[in-house]
Amino acid sequence: MSNGAVPQPDPSKFTGTDALFLQDFATLNTFGATAGGGVERQAGSPADGEQRAWLSGILRDKGFDVSFDQVGNQFGLLELNPGAPYVLVGSHLDSQPTAGRYDGAYGVLAAAHAAFLLAEEWHADGIIPRYNLAVVNWFNEEGSRFKPSMMGSSVYTGKAAPEHVLAITDAAGISVREALEATAALGEGTGPKAAYAAEIHIQQGRSMERDGITIGVVDSNWAANKYQFEVRGEQSHTGSTIIADRHDALLGASMLVVAAREIADHFPDGAVHTSVGQLDVSPNSPVVVPSLVTLLLDLRSADEELLAEADRILHDRIGQIEAAARVEISKTGSHCWPVTPYQPEGVALAEKMAADRGLTYSRIKTLAGHDSTNLKDVVPTVMLFVPSVEGISHNEHEYTTDQDIVSGLHVLTDVVRSLCLGELDAR
Amino acid sequence: MSNGAVPQPDPSKFTGTDALFLQDFATLNTFGATAGGGVERQAGSPADGEQRAWLSGILRDKGFDVSFDQVGNQFGLLELNPGAPYVLVGSHLDSQPTAGRYDGAYGVLAAAHAAFLLAEEWHADGIIPRYNLAVVNWFNEEGSRFKPSMMGSSVYTGKAAPEHVLAITDAAGISVREALEATAALGEGTGPKAAYAAEIHIQQGRSMERDGITIGVVDSNWAANKYQFEVRGEQSHTGSTIIADRHDALLGASMLVVAAREIADHFPDGAVHTSVGQLDVSPNSPVVVPSLVTLLLDLRSADEELLAEADRILHDRIGQIEAAARVEISKTGSHCWPVTPYQPEGVALAEKMAADRGLTYSRIKTLAGHDSTNLKDVVPTVMLFVPSVEGISHNEHEYTTDQDIVSGLHVLTDVVRSLCLGELDAR
Repeated sequence: MSNGAVPQPDPSKFTGTDALFLQDFATLNTFGATAGGGVERQAGSPADGEQRAWLSGILRDKGFDVSFDQVGNQFGLLELNPGAPYVLVGSHLDSQPTAGRYDGAYGVLAAAHAAFLLAEEWHADGIIPRYNLAVVNWFNEEGSRFKPSMMGSSVYTGKAAPEHVLAITDAAGISVREALEATAALGEGTGPKAAYAAEIHIQQGRSMERDGITIGVVDSNWAANKYQFEVRGEQSHTGSTIIADRHDALLGASMLVVAAREIADHFPDGAVHTSVGQLDVSPNSPVVVPSLVTLLLDLRSADEELLAEADRILHDRIGQIEAAARVEISKTGSHCWPVTPYQPEGVALAEKMAADRGLTYSRIKTLAGHDSTNLKDVVPTVMLFVPSVEGISHNEHEYTTDQDIVSGLHVLTDVVRSLCLGELDAR
Repeated sequence: MSNGAVPQPDPSKFTGTDALFLQDFATLNTFGATAGGGVERQAGSPADGEQRAWLSGILRDKGFDVSFDQVGNQFGLLELNPGAPYVLVGSHLDSQPTAGRYDGAYGVLAAAHAAFLLAEEWHADGIIPRYNLAVVNWFNEEGSRFKPSMMGSSVYTGKAAPEHVLAITDAAGISVREALEATAALGEGTGPKAAYAAEIHIQQGRSMERDGITIGVVDSNWAANKYQFEVRGEQSHTGSTIIADRHDALLGASMLVVAAREIADHFPDGAVHTSVGQLDVSPNSPVVVPSLVTLLLDLRSADEELLAEADRILHDRIGQIEAAARVEISKTGSHCWPVTPYQPEGVALAEKMAADRGLTYSRIKTLAGHDSTNLKDVVPTVMLFVPSVEGISHNEHEYTTDQDIVSGLHVLTDVVRSLCLGELDAR
């Protein structure tokens, strides 16, 4: 179930900029470090503020102009071609609770080091790229403290309104605006104009490790239907209320959790993923039959027809559960997206860059959402994966080898160089 | 599912001490009153402190000596026979969250008014009873804020250690000691010595209403096995982790909730009750497969053999669930009690008192635990029930008619008179 203690990056086995990258990654791992070897730095937390300040520092040291936009997206700008739009390369530093070190953080630091190398290269060679370069740390990709996820990139791409996002509160009633102000991350404006985007991330699945692939080139995302349900029963005494009189919201909710797994099992070859990650019981007292349960349930598939079939089965099951548990189940929120492709010219470019480096590569679909899932809807976007040992993710034992994260950095650097030089413009 | 708005007591339809009792009950209903027509005054809360101060006031007005013991049990003592032990009559004022007005509170106020009437009667007639009389408000019967339930009566009857109880904390980390100090309810000593005990309570079931019975005479309690379980899985990403790699603690917990209901349904005629009232998910984030769920599950039956069979089925199911959901389930706490009788001489006394009043009555078993369940293990104890409309309990719509609570007060007064006069001593 776990791969034990995760080793720290070992820069001594590498040289030059690769060693510096690993050194910085070891430093980044100290922010919000947990006793279990992972990190906990949810969006807008003190640990998130500390790592953002540290990122600002290393960007400014290299001559990048650092700013925050109206919803806390952090940009490190290198404007070599005044007025030209930017290639945005980055990911997110925020984490889940008791999370691993790689999810998001690897992509931001790799973006910074790719940008550092290109800045030096262009300076030495006297090159003015066609597009400027921006390192990005998107705000609140995880959505654990403030919902929904991919918040910063959703505002940047026009999918969410900034004033709406700033008013969202966490479980303690603290708003996004207050959390951003408390971590000195609330800026203004809408950030730099984008021409292209790129992101690198760990796979969060085990297929690349299993197949011996170093570079995954993401060609599309899975479709997803994410629902919030309320299950309503009637509060009563657990001891004395006869079973026939009960309207047990937790029983109904539990039947829904079990049904979700049965739906996944109904489809062969893991074609449909289902889950319930969050569930809250009210009043949640030992001798009270629960009157209300809220839960978040999601269905995902790479095949939209299968997803639609899974969704039909789910809604049939809901009616059956309402009758069996004598509860009422209502949908109080939903967030659905189709299968959408990453631009084929970006996929081809990334494949060429991986091949030129002599690395194994293959096309892959992303099951998880990423900031690049938003970016690709407004500009051509390249999404790269590196393998994740045992596919472990959202877990302190998340691990990718130093060799793989360095190889990923190399390919990302090559991709970003090509994008900045306008090599994709003609295609 | 509900009987709508619950009417307030209407003293204008009654006379004399009955009207005064209903008037006081209407006042008591204002402490911690909820918008839904119920009350919320969990143990040691500000609302609990207010109602305790009010109870002290009405007891002192009638010449009772009010004190708190070492764990916040509140006593109103009428010592007419110096040095003699006491008949303890009472129940509990604390409530569940969003609870009804009758559970516990009716029993305390009926005890006070029974005592007021007997005090006047003995004073007028110049009678010195064999035993002294104590009105009791037992601390934290409900166990919603501080676990376990029946806390005050457990310490009084020697089943729990006071220093252990005082150190127990609520979800916010506040200890029983701190809550008692904050509500001026932490006293000292072990309270008055008991000779007999009596309690009246609403039924929290619908059989008396269905059968047209006004007075239930409790002859035994149901046996119960109450367990705390931990379900352990492995934290991972809900989107990208393939189903075969998941160790979903919430799936395992949900299967356990469903299994509990299936076990109840397995036994005909409602002979076994099961429930899960409390369930907490960790880390409880939308896109994280839960790693840990804790839950409280209980099994109850009036038949110990059926309970043992239900328990065996439960433990068989746990092994099956562990394999099916690939989780580990461990028992981290348990609290079990057998079927135990109330003293037959007390049952006979209560039946005679009800018959003398011309009221319908029958023997009944209590499914819920009560403070009297503890008291009966140390002194002869009489437990009376009045009907509850639709059996609704632990709910704002809990309701018993004015006529029934007044009839219950009359029988309780008669029983306490007999106990104080020593009429049960010879039997």
